Amino acid sequence: MASSPSPSAAFSANTANQITGEKPDRADGPTIAEKDALMKRESGVTDQSPMRLRMEAFIKQHQKQIVAELEKVDGKPFTIDTWQRPEGGGGITCVLQDGNVFEKAGVNTSVVYGRLPRAAIAKMRVNHKALDPDVDSIEFFAAGLSMVLHPSNPMAPTVHLNYRYFETADENGNTNAWWYGGGCDLTPCYLFDEDAIHFHNTIKAACDKHDKAYYPRFKKWCDEYFNNKHRGETRGIGGIFFDDLDETEKDQEQLFAFVQDCLSAFLPSYIPIINRRKNMTFTEKEKQWQQLRRGRYVEFNLVHDRGTAFGLNTPGSRVESILMSLPLTARWQYMHSPEKGSREQRLVDVLKNPREWV
Amino acid sequence: MASSPSPSAAFSANTANQITGEKPDRADGPTIAEKDALMKRESGVTDQSPMRLRMEAFIKQHQKQIVAELEKVDGKPFTIDTWQRPEGGGGITCVLQDGNVFEKAGVNTSVVYGRLPRAAIAKMRVNHKALDPDVDSIEFFAAGLSMVLHPSNPMAPTVHLNYRYFETADENGNTNAWWYGGGCDLTPCYLFDEDAIHFHNTIKAACDKHDKAYYPRFKKWCDEYFNNKHRGETRGIGGIFFDDLDETEKDQEQLFAFVQDCLSAFLPSYIPIINRRKNMTFTEKEKQWQQLRRGRYVEFNLVHDRGTAFGLNTPGSRVESILMSLPLTARWQYMHSPEKGSREQRLVDVLKNPREWV
Repeated sequence: MASSPSPSAAFSANTANQITGEKPDRADGPTIAEKDALMKRESGVTDQSPMRLRMEAFIKQHQKQIVAELEKVDGKPFTIDTWQRPEGGGGITCVLQDGNVFEKAGVNTSVVYGRLPRAAIAKMRVNHKALDPDVDSIEFFAAGLSMVLHPSNPMAPTVHLNYRYFETADENGNTNAWWYGGGCDLTPCYLFDEDAIHFHNTIKAACDKHDKAYYPRFKKWCDEYFNNKHRGETRGIGGIFFDDLDETEKDQEQLFAFVQDCLSAFLPSYIPIINRRKNMTFTEKEKQWQQLRRGRYVEFNLVHDRGTAFGLNTPGSRVESILMSLPLTARWQYMHSPEKGSREQRLVDVLKNPREWV
Repeated sequence: MASSPSPSAAFSANTANQITGEKPDRADGPTIAEKDALMKRESGVTDQSPMRLRMEAFIKQHQKQIVAELEKVDGKPFTIDTWQRPEGGGGITCVLQDGNVFEKAGVNTSVVYGRLPRAAIAKMRVNHKALDPDVDSIEFFAAGLSMVLHPSNPMAPTVHLNYRYFETADENGNTNAWWYGGGCDLTPCYLFDEDAIHFHNTIKAACDKHDKAYYPRFKKWCDEYFNNKHRGETRGIGGIFFDDLDETEKDQEQLFAFVQDCLSAFLPSYIPIINRRKNMTFTEKEKQWQQLRRGRYVEFNLVHDRGTAFGLNTPGSRVESILMSLPLTARWQYMHSPEKGSREQRLVDVLKNPREWV
């Protein structure tokens, strides 16, 4: 598998929900959305259920757990918006704004049933040969959890996470192509080596349980993807990123177990960091540096992130869920550059030359 | 001429300077950059000089005048950065940050000599049939003045302006295709009808001197171009925008006179507005609304503006000049919406349904 991100990365859980404005074709049998709804009502979700339902159950359960832990860290509750899609599926958007610890925090799940148009199929075929190029559209399913946390304290790092499962169905409603994508990365304004080492170590341990090659491969992919190319800087100090993991990689159960372990590693990777940084003292100048770094975060998300661009350029998308990833506030100063030998300069040096942390 | 913006709009003066990293081909005769430098030394710039030199002289003279007038409004001086391109041309970047009136103001000129690669020629041929599709690269010249002013006071509107001239040379160094582009648009956070009417009236008067059809046509083009499609809102209350005006439109002298009048209309269109708004009282809540609107400005510039995207995706571009257009500070709040019947809501209503102001 090529390490450069593929077009299908665009189909993040947040954005895939608007791939087509059309309702699924009611041609012959029931849609997979209808089949899944029936199955859930009749027999609940078990290990024998289709992966779609297992992934959905898994991300929703983790969303609850993560939100509960973050509320303990912050002391303020999240606001919860639940939305449905008429075509099947829906989402849960949990947001905490102006918290005690988090300036802005969003933890979202979304589950999407829809149809992919021909042009999107052609792009996806680059990585998934099982897709039939000779049909006008195919049914698809996408489910994912995505999260961005921006703490107020400039010593506390921003973190982003996204894990998603994608599946297409043939004309009889049977699974055709499927794959997993996702990752998790840390964006500090002030670099504490112990935080970077802890974060990478925790993720590496989750990867190593499944394949010793995963961490180095997905760490590199992360540095390449979360990159403000126009600045010659990575967005942060990385983590892991992967996409299009399908049967050419490992079997579905193995990959699901891998993604489960990655997501389960999030709380232990981040909670110790936020707890030791959230109450540190800081100066006005340090707060301002954070605001400039937030500007760079906005630049990446709006200029380079394919999921965001795809979502915003798709008519009728839920813009508030897509742009929830942006910080509450950001700043752009002409020709700002950190002082030589400063902590700010040290961060920039590391962003220009990504390091191996473990 | 189609009213939808063409690919060549990407070649704004700020960004065109990095179209190729290569130095001009030294094959046979002197480059146009060398010819122009010689001409300037020997005979200065007169009405008989090539349009390249006349446009350059015109924008530099206006840059000085505009900077001088803005310094009177603000009371603080601009910082001036002059930069040269080894291949010919260069730029003057004038910036005022943290002024008394302007939070961030940039007035730039740039003059660029370079070579266009084959792919860029193919795109430009859509609008300029004179371009030869069968060459590997052609020499080009671009000169423009671009400006963005973000005042601190939320009652005072942001304004953007850009006027540019583009020319290509055949293999003997003679002018092949040429065209003008540009425009000027106003982005208030609080809408004062008298400001909108004054701004549009002043621009319309400049247009009407040349062609009664220009103002309505270019006003519409502006509303279509400066549009945050993902929000269903225009960026501001518009002005004019045009591109690719060449010999199929009017002769070169007529178009140059038109662009000169447009640029000369800037100070009378904006100075009265900034002077009556710069010292108005405002509340913390109004300042916050300005910050949210600044977020939308960032969204347009980073997601939709072709010049910015083109510049940022071109290796080696002068990022600080390109992103000078961003406000000093901006804000994104999840699910913010103005109160019904409020002044904030009234602005949004107008952005969703652009009005005719004159």
